[in-house]
Amino acid sequence: EKELRDVEESFGFKFSDTVTWLNINGLNHVAEIEKLGKHYELHPLVIEDIVNISQRPKIDEYENYLFVVLKMLYYDTDEKIVSEQVSFVLGNNYVLSFQESEGDVFDAVRDRIRQGKGRVRDMESDYLLYVLIDAIVDHYYSVIDTLSDKIENFETAIFSGHVDDDISQNIQNLKREILRVRKAIFPLREVINRIEKNDNKLIQPSTLTFYRDVYDHLIQVSENIDIYREMIWSLMDMYMTTISNKMNEVMKVLTIMASIFIPLTFIAGIYGMNFEYIPELQYRYSYFILWGVMVVLFISMLFYFKRKKWL
Amino acid sequence: EKELRDVEESFGFKFSDTVTWLNINGLNHVAEIEKLGKHYELHPLVIEDIVNISQRPKIDEYENYLFVVLKMLYYDTDEKIVSEQVSFVLGNNYVLSFQESEGDVFDAVRDRIRQGKGRVRDMESDYLLYVLIDAIVDHYYSVIDTLSDKIENFETAIFSGHVDDDISQNIQNLKREILRVRKAIFPLREVINRIEKNDNKLIQPSTLTFYRDVYDHLIQVSENIDIYREMIWSLMDMYMTTISNKMNEVMKVLTIMASIFIPLTFIAGIYGMNFEYIPELQYRYSYFILWGVMVVLFISMLFYFKRKKWL
Amino acid sequence: EKELRDVEESFGFKFSDTVTWLNINGLNHVAEIEKLGKHYELHPLVIEDIVNISQRPKIDEYENYLFVVLKMLYYDTDEKIVSEQVSFVLGNNYVLSFQESEGDVFDAVRDRIRQGKGRVRDMESDYLLYVLIDAIVDHYYSVIDTLSDKIENFETAIFSGHVDDDISQNIQNLKREILRVRKAIFPLREVINRIEKNDNKLIQPSTLTFYRDVYDHLIQVSENIDIYREMIWSLMDMYMTTISNKMNEVMKVLTIMASIFIPLTFIAGIYGMNFEYIPELQYRYSYFILWGVMVVLFISMLFYFKRKKWL
Amino acid sequence: EKELRDVEESFGFKFSDTVTWLNINGLNHVAEIEKLGKHYELHPLVIEDIVNISQRPKIDEYENYLFVVLKMLYYDTDEKIVSEQVSFVLGNNYVLSFQESEGDVFDAVRDRIRQGKGRVRDMESDYLLYVLIDAIVDHYYSVIDTLSDKIENFETAIFSGHVDDDISQNIQNLKREILRVRKAIFPLREVINRIEKNDNKLIQPSTLTFYRDVYDHLIQVSENIDIYREMIWSLMDMYMTTISNKMNEVMKVLTIMASIFIPLTFIAGIYGMNFEYIPELQYRYSYFILWGVMVVLFISMLFYFKRKKWL
Amino acid sequence: EKELRDVEESFGFKFSDTVTWLNINGLNHVAEIEKLGKHYELHPLVIEDIVNISQRPKIDEYENYLFVVLKMLYYDTDEKIVSEQVSFVLGNNYVLSFQESEGDVFDAVRDRIRQGKGRVRDMESDYLLYVLIDAIVDHYYSVIDTLSDKIENFETAIFSGHVDDDISQNIQNLKREILRVRKAIFPLREVINRIEKNDNKLIQPSTLTFYRDVYDHLIQVSENIDIYREMIWSLMDMYMTTISNKMNEVMKVLTIMASIFIPLTFIAGIYGMNFEYIPELQYRYSYFILWGVMVVLFISMLFYFKRKKWL
Repeated sequence: EKELRDVEESFGFKFSDTVTWLNINGLNHVAEIEKLGKHYELHPLVIEDIVNISQRPKIDEYENYLFVVLKMLYYDTDEKIVSEQVSFVLGNNYVLSFQESEGDVFDAVRDRIRQGKGRVRDMESDYLLYVLIDAIVDHYYSVIDTLSDKIENFETAIFSGHVDDDISQNIQNLKREILRVRKAIFPLREVINRIEKNDNKLIQPSTLTFYRDVYDHLIQVSENIDIYREMIWSLMDMYMTTISNKMNEVMKVLTIMASIFIPLTFIAGIYGMNFEYIPELQYRYSYFILWGVMVVLFISMLFYFKRKKWL
Repeated sequence: EKELRDVEESFGFKFSDTVTWLNINGLNHVAEIEKLGKHYELHPLVIEDIVNISQRPKIDEYENYLFVVLKMLYYDTDEKIVSEQVSFVLGNNYVLSFQESEGDVFDAVRDRIRQGKGRVRDMESDYLLYVLIDAIVDHYYSVIDTLSDKIENFETAIFSGHVDDDISQNIQNLKREILRVRKAIFPLREVINRIEKNDNKLIQPSTLTFYRDVYDHLIQVSENIDIYREMIWSLMDMYMTTISNKMNEVMKVLTIMASIFIPLTFIAGIYGMNFEYIPELQYRYSYFILWGVMVVLFISMLFYFKRKKWL
Repeated sequence: EKELRDVEESFGFKFSDTVTWLNINGLNHVAEIEKLGKHYELHPLVIEDIVNISQRPKIDEYENYLFVVLKMLYYDTDEKIVSEQVSFVLGNNYVLSFQESEGDVFDAVRDRIRQGKGRVRDMESDYLLYVLIDAIVDHYYSVIDTLSDKIENFETAIFSGHVDDDISQNIQNLKREILRVRKAIFPLREVINRIEKNDNKLIQPSTLTFYRDVYDHLIQVSENIDIYREMIWSLMDMYMTTISNKMNEVMKVLTIMASIFIPLTFIAGIYGMNFEYIPELQYRYSYFILWGVMVVLFISMLFYFKRKKWL
Repeated sequence: EKELRDVEESFGFKFSDTVTWLNINGLNHVAEIEKLGKHYELHPLVIEDIVNISQRPKIDEYENYLFVVLKMLYYDTDEKIVSEQVSFVLGNNYVLSFQESEGDVFDAVRDRIRQGKGRVRDMESDYLLYVLIDAIVDHYYSVIDTLSDKIENFETAIFSGHVDDDISQNIQNLKREILRVRKAIFPLREVINRIEKNDNKLIQPSTLTFYRDVYDHLIQVSENIDIYREMIWSLMDMYMTTISNKMNEVMKVLTIMASIFIPLTFIAGIYGMNFEYIPELQYRYSYFILWGVMVVLFISMLFYFKRKKWL
Repeated sequence: EKELRDVEESFGFKFSDTVTWLNINGLNHVAEIEKLGKHYELHPLVIEDIVNISQRPKIDEYENYLFVVLKMLYYDTDEKIVSEQVSFVLGNNYVLSFQESEGDVFDAVRDRIRQGKGRVRDMESDYLLYVLIDAIVDHYYSVIDTLSDKIENFETAIFSGHVDDDISQNIQNLKREILRVRKAIFPLREVINRIEKNDNKLIQPSTLTFYRDVYDHLIQVSENIDIYREMIWSLMDMYMTTISNKMNEVMKVLTIMASIFIPLTFIAGIYGMNFEYIPELQYRYSYFILWGVMVVLFISMLFYFKRKKWL
């Protein structure tokens, strides 16, 4: 295991008997990558696809090698989801991997190789490719766990009545995240399925079981994503009903206040009129009787709204 | 039939002529399970899948055995749905079953074996596997019955006008439950279908009819789940219209009260003005005429709202 | 044609040259049905499926007979939809039919047999089975006609402004009905398709044309059901907009009343103040001028709302 | 070319060398049609399907002829969509066509035959059938153009703020129309596809290109229908938001009026009280100061609502 | 490379050894196109399809040539999307291309040919067709980028609270745009897929890799369109919740104003009554006490609404 400064240093490994894993970080050294591609006799379109980081996950089978593109997903420090392209070229006795930036997703794999632990050291390049893909797919689980947590937070927020515009904005952002994750993960299912199903001489039968295992993981991740998607879509509905319920509550307060005091004010207004002849005005106990009437009216109103369950 | 303390006690059964059913409860004794796996020559990925309880239902065919993972569903004492993983290894003359915790879903099967009743005792391991799977699938019916009851309760609650925020929360939870049940049951259809369709030497032709029967049950359960799903999604719509209807009712009360008393109060206000020269004030019957006008206005308002069907 | 008291009476027919149709009403005489099953050498699962009335429509092919389960649909006297299970066993020279209760859907078939009319009498058991299935499928048309009528009634009700909670409840019930009808009819398509497509020796090529005809009818019924389903789902939307329109109308009345009279009341209130020095109070024509101002205000308000199309 | 009164007159043409096209208008002369069917040796189910006008588009292949059912669509004088059944029987040297009523969709075809123009005259019955089907499919374009116009009219109406209940009713009717058009056109795709794909000796290879062209047209029509369908479904949403926006506007007017005048009325009410000792009442400039306060309050309220963008 | 005035000038190229690319701009010179079609022995339906600009993307395989129709998309100067038809005829040593109007999408290709750069000059007609199609597909990316920008603008507008009717109109227009783009791009996937999968002698195996690359691009564009579609559909929901939130805010202002001042006005009304005997009126400090009561009421109301989080 070495860190190479120059691509050409690696050329010696091509015809060695052991399996060589060449990991290239950073895709802007186009010239170097083209040199490497020439050395390994890669098709020009492969080089183009490695460098163009907006590929969708795919597999292309060439005569002497397999070309696999997939997406690594992680949340960055701003809690934004990042989708980074990783390409693999699987040859008979080598695996080339190309990453956008130096990540740590392959660290565990490196450790296992260094320690000679597990089956990694003894097996062929197809098994190494499996180990690398598996490391990426395992990472998807942590991404969807974060998604799941976010959804639950929103649910809790909405249930506890926080209905500001931010929520609708955040839900929209979450939808966007889920759509991006789907876009990165869903096509990969077909890629792995084709590896598992096809009869490619580069993949040994004994390794197929492991690819099937990765495929099962992907199906599981996909199903979870679809469930989260439904949950978040229905969250919007729930948010809508919560808003409506809030409005209902506001309207009730208004209606109760207005319905109680507007009639009473009217009655007070009657006896504020300046007609010369209003018989009640002269009567000594009018004022007290009126208070009595008003209190009765007030209480019966309260009862009425109580019975309607508005209070 | 014995309860074994140590896995190794069971090894003697491997080459016996009769069918052996080994049921392992609790998946944290990883070492024991690995020992067992070694004895029965299971693939390392199988052991991994048995122990990792977040598998989705699947079937893996190996040379000498079939590996089946499925989910047992039941409501716990808190009325929360629990999804527990059960794995089966079907060999030529043995069935291994692995449960997360000691359940009672297999009790009926045990009883039938003890009593030597039914076809269980005479038949091969593939029939025993069918009986065990059937026991789990039959249990799904009781789960979806509970779901059905819950939905009907919500419908009744909404119809009778209970529109608090709890309902929207409960509906959201119910959606989540249905999505979990779907996730546990739907992939199983394909598993059983593959058992039925494939030409595996471990499954005898005469047993296929029984697997087809389980498959039919699963399709039926799935269809019911999808129906419940549509019902609950439309429940949300219904809840929304109920809220809107409530608000309409509130608004009508407010509008009627305000529309009737605001004009009357205005009239009273007119004659409460202190202008020195207001002819009506001196007229002796003004007050009574005004009352007459107000009563007429009041009644015609009532008629107006009656005709609009707001009352 | 006889009405038999005892199943065993029928056993003589088994080996007769002519086609025998045995119709069993009521499925609680399990013992009798089992006896019959034994006589006709039916698989135990077939007997189980006949007696268990919650089967979904399906077809099972056995060596000497075909087993078909389907659902008869009708509206009972309470206008509730009833789904009743009918099972058929088609043998070489016999058709067994099992109904939950004595219905009249086969009466027309019986009449045609009695009168020796049509092709029924001359043809084989596969044609008889077609005639019986066709009778059930023809009945579906009347069920979906009732559904269609119900939907149109709701549309008319909503259009004419009846927006009470009952409508949302009734729509929910109608959805449930449509889901039940779908559940009963849709799987039958596959059943008939398999009869038509498969190469079963019990079905003669000349009869296939007739099964294809039934299949076409089923497709047509299914398409209609899906159309009704969309109509009723969109009915809910329409109901929602109608509620909102109603609320808009209510709000407009409130707003117009309040916007007109609140300012006027304010003006009246001004001159009801008891300040010692309010110059307008002494002026002789103040009262009449004020009335003039109020009338102008009132009319210009009306114009304003007229221009906004609120009146 | 003749107009025949009696079906039997046509029988002579059956064995002629040239291609015969027999167009039957009106399907209630069942006896005549049955006579014709006998003469051309049609299957009884074909006769039944010709006469029963509620068939869905389909193709049935018989040994000596092809039977095709499709739907002709047009808007009648009341702007209601009419779906009329047209059946074709394609034999070796004849085409029978059956229409519900005498239409003019085939007039153009007749003209081309009369004038001996185009390829119609020289070619075989399969090409004639293509020409007839093509005439019907071409007519679909004018139907979906009308649909498109209707949708745009509704959009314009909703955008310009016409939100009465009629719109929701009209949208519902439009949905119904689209569903009917779908029902008539979509199954036809499969019919034409089967003509094109199957290896029927009645259709010559050179004609297949033309059927593929019809198929392309159908796909295009179908795609447009689906687009219109989405547009109209989303029209309902748009309608809903427009209603809500209207209500918002109404509420704002109410809130502004009430928020401005209710506090002012309160202030006026204060100084309308009859307490013996209210110091302000005696002060000479109180009235004018109060007016000042009220104007300031009024203006600051206006500013407040202006800042909230409610004005 | 020449600009030809007359179609016939081109006929000499037909049998040349080198690859000829003939680009025809403007489709109203039908006679010329028919002459060309005759010269290249094109099927009459091909000529018809070239001239009829409302084709959907498709591929027709004829014996000596391939006919491909696709849509070029761009935004015109009014920011409206334009879908222009481009047809290709691929022969053994020629490519004919037909555009509605002179565009500049092929300029880059022309440049590459002129400069003899890249693989264009050396390779066969099938590679030239790839280059031309690729130029069109690459242009789709800029179209969907514009769509993406528009959606984000709407999101920002809605989030910042701009809720006028224009937004709903613009969203509707955007939906229409997306549906049009889908309609132009989605069928092309199948076209390219058929080129790649089929075994047409006009396409050499070495070129297939390039067509697969175009196919990958199309899939990617399609996925993005579907994502944008979901985003915009959910934008409507978000818009709806924003409107509702606004209304809630309006209602709260109204309710707070009314709830505070209506009771206070009532109290003032009480002491504006003209009863002869109201004990409080004579009491010297009544007025000040009343003010105190009102202030307390006012403040406790504010507290109440504060606690309800309406303020």
